[in-house]
Amino acid sequence: VQLGRPVVVADLLATFVFALQGGATAAGAGLDVFGILVVAFVAALGGGVVRDVLIGDVPPAAFRSTVYPVVAFGGGAVATLLFSLVREIPPLVLGSLDAAGLALFAVVGAAKANDHGMNLLLAALLGALSAVGGGVMRDLLLGQVPLVLNSQVYAVAALAGAAVTATLLSLRAPRAAALAGGAVICLALRLLALWNGWQLPRIV
Amino acid sequence: VQLGRPVVVADLLATFVFALQGGATAAGAGLDVFGILVVAFVAALGGGVVRDVLIGDVPPAAFRSTVYPVVAFGGGAVATLLFSLVREIPPLVLGSLDAAGLALFAVVGAAKANDHGMNLLLAALLGALSAVGGGVMRDLLLGQVPLVLNSQVYAVAALAGAAVTATLLSLRAPRAAALAGGAVICLALRLLALWNGWQLPRIV
Amino acid sequence: VQLGRPVVVADLLATFVFALQGGATAAGAGLDVFGILVVAFVAALGGGVVRDVLIGDVPPAAFRSTVYPVVAFGGGAVATLLFSLVREIPPLVLGSLDAAGLALFAVVGAAKANDHGMNLLLAALLGALSAVGGGVMRDLLLGQVPLVLNSQVYAVAALAGAAVTATLLSLRAPRAAALAGGAVICLALRLLALWNGWQLPRIV
Repeated sequence: VQLGRPVVVADLLATFVFALQGGATAAGAGLDVFGILVVAFVAALGGGVVRDVLIGDVPPAAFRSTVYPVVAFGGGAVATLLFSLVREIPPLVLGSLDAAGLALFAVVGAAKANDHGMNLLLAALLGALSAVGGGVMRDLLLGQVPLVLNSQVYAVAALAGAAVTATLLSLRAPRAAALAGGAVICLALRLLALWNGWQLPRIV
Repeated sequence: VQLGRPVVVADLLATFVFALQGGATAAGAGLDVFGILVVAFVAALGGGVVRDVLIGDVPPAAFRSTVYPVVAFGGGAVATLLFSLVREIPPLVLGSLDAAGLALFAVVGAAKANDHGMNLLLAALLGALSAVGGGVMRDLLLGQVPLVLNSQVYAVAALAGAAVTATLLSLRAPRAAALAGGAVICLALRLLALWNGWQLPRIV
Repeated sequence: VQLGRPVVVADLLATFVFALQGGATAAGAGLDVFGILVVAFVAALGGGVVRDVLIGDVPPAAFRSTVYPVVAFGGGAVATLLFSLVREIPPLVLGSLDAAGLALFAVVGAAKANDHGMNLLLAALLGALSAVGGGVMRDLLLGQVPLVLNSQVYAVAALAGAAVTATLLSLRAPRAAALAGGAVICLALRLLALWNGWQLPRIV
């Protein structure tokens, strides 16, 4: 995907936030420093790697540059070194940063899938997978049922944002508008859910 | 793989059954409606996606059409909306439907691997993986040791059916005969095991 | 990767040791004989398969030959048939064999990634992934937090060895020297950690 410079900067920031969060979760679960770095790496880059494998763009983009792995390990290192500080970040603040990362990963992932000729449905699904895949792997590595399958309108927000971007792109909207439109929808949905404690219904 | 129309219809039915089952399991585990749809999707399509990634056929076939994702989500939606009904389906009935899906996925997967030049051993393994991979991922997402590694002659039946199909194809048997032969073996083995409660031996 | 005959023999031995260990772990966890074979297979070949998928070398090398699957299943079969004997192998002996396998998989994986044009950082990471990926999948299948994320300098040793090999290769050292140098470093680190009970620090 050709991304403008602001999107690249935002993408790296999102990578850092996901790595920070993943690393802090792993540290809290009692892993050693290396395990923390691994979980940070997987949480930050895992979703995009699976997306790239599925669309046949290998080696995955995160593995063709040096900056993404370095930023991911950097987030894990900060989580390790400043754990007592990171743990003090209020959940709503961290959750809001995370929501921004979620929105960005979802729309960039949808745009990339669209560029590779995926239809609208698949572009939306792959965008959502890019955004939540790392979190799913983080939780599996820590022996937990993935939170994103079970929390406040998290993956749904990613899917909604990715679907908006994919739809706008398929309608030949300008690329910046398609990315921005999807990101706003995802961010708004997730923040509203987070602040209001919205939950999707359960069956049992 | 070129599949005749009856095989395509059967393949879609099997996708639906696996999605229904995966969705019902997720609902019973307390996931929200979105998590239920995700687990249904993964249970129905995950095995074939991994097979296609391993043989280098990307994007995976399930991602190149719209009908497979729609059927998988449809199965999850039915499991959500009609959960109290689905839960009432007697285990032997659901297990028998599942056995039919297992047989079909195993032989179609083996035929596809064979078409991509895999040798007999690998075609059999990839056929079995196509059939049980979705169930393994379903259980991992729900935080459980995969049932298929530990239940009545389930994966073994898939492997036996896939091996028969791969062997018949490598002997240049007609395609329909190879598919039917493997499917009958898998179905018979699994149904006999299910009805009689057969278990493979354990060491401890 | 072009490997000399001694490296191929060592690689097959390492595959066997990983399969034996994986199979014994699965047997101890109460899986049936088929589940034991599956876990042995995944433990022995999973890391290399993921590496190959990520560098775009599909079908994975382990799936293009017959000998690797056969050796992996052979290790699982021995673990099943001789479980009471395998269980008696002193942990230090099995751990030392395992360390040799770890070293070999790490440096061969790093060399393969280097041959596919990966930069130094990625070659080191993919080498480490080749070495520990199978163990991670083994533990996930058994419902456990991956041991390698949390034990004595295990993945760190793999990463160090892979980094040494990747560095030597990028400095155009002779291939045999690059492989041997990395393997010695990994083996020495892991054995020292194992014998002395070294642990990486934890945060909580």
